[in-house]
Amino acid sequence: MSIIEKDAIIFHPIGHIRSPFDKPEGMPIQPAGAKDIEGHIELYAPLEEGLKDLDGFSHIILLYHFHGNSEFSLKVTPFMDTEERGVFSTRAPRRPNMIGMSTVELLSIEGNVLKIRGVDVLDKTPLIDIKPYVAKFDAVPATRFGWLEENAEKSESLKSDGRFV
Amino acid sequence: MSIIEKDAIIFHPIGHIRSPFDKPEGMPIQPAGAKDIEGHIELYAPLEEGLKDLDGFSHIILLYHFHGNSEFSLKVTPFMDTEERGVFSTRAPRRPNMIGMSTVELLSIEGNVLKIRGVDVLDKTPLIDIKPYVAKFDAVPATRFGWLEENAEKSESLKSDGRFV
Repeated sequence: MSIIEKDAIIFHPIGHIRSPFDKPEGMPIQPAGAKDIEGHIELYAPLEEGLKDLDGFSHIILLYHFHGNSEFSLKVTPFMDTEERGVFSTRAPRRPNMIGMSTVELLSIEGNVLKIRGVDVLDKTPLIDIKPYVAKFDAVPATRFGWLEENAEKSESLKSDGRFV
Repeated sequence: MSIIEKDAIIFHPIGHIRSPFDKPEGMPIQPAGAKDIEGHIELYAPLEEGLKDLDGFSHIILLYHFHGNSEFSLKVTPFMDTEERGVFSTRAPRRPNMIGMSTVELLSIEGNVLKIRGVDVLDKTPLIDIKPYVAKFDAVPATRFGWLEENAEKSESLKSDGRFV
């Protein structure tokens, strides 16, 4: 299915995420399954000033481009399930706008390099944004988790089989 | 400051967020300050199939375009503070890629229209992605919240003064 070619929004990478995963096969599918995996962010040096004060936060939210994908599907069978689900009820990469989101632990910042832990992304993934993780904003009193109610636990052990690339 | 013109990532709106706020002045600055504010999402009709199974979730994460902004700053003085902070340690809209993130309550889905509560965005904001909120992935055991440690509470009462537009 082709994307709706209307009102383009143009972003540019602010840097790259470096990780031990150079291919999707065998990669953890969520930070919960990558607790001990360390990696780092190489922020474009001219943006370094924007990192001021970030070292006060224990966790950060990364938004990035699922750059290995080009086509999207409105229904996908997620790693954690055997049934087809609407793509917006999943975290699958093959979505109309291929944007990924991971909350990771921030270990240190040196210049334009951020050491992080809990990395579930491919090496050299283009980074779009960094936001501070703030429990007050980001941990909400949710009560229902749909098909992930019983399946989210699997994210700790499941690895990618590369089906989305 | 101009953005780095390299490796453009092109997204397209998947629909729009409708809210009672037609200008930034007086708008809540986070969902925490907009708990009772209802709005809705008009998803582009051809994407409706992608909503399957989403009604099982009590909360959803919206990624959207801060479309009222064009210039970014690496240092900003956030609504919740009086000091200049590095933009990546804030949720301010004037970031290198003007992407906003809000976790809202999902009230109902009818066709391609999603009723939501806790809306802190401008009316007609272009929507980029919808993800299910999953506590297992999105509520992390964070311990430090930097300059927002003492200031996040203010998000419940502070309103935008339009400084970022």
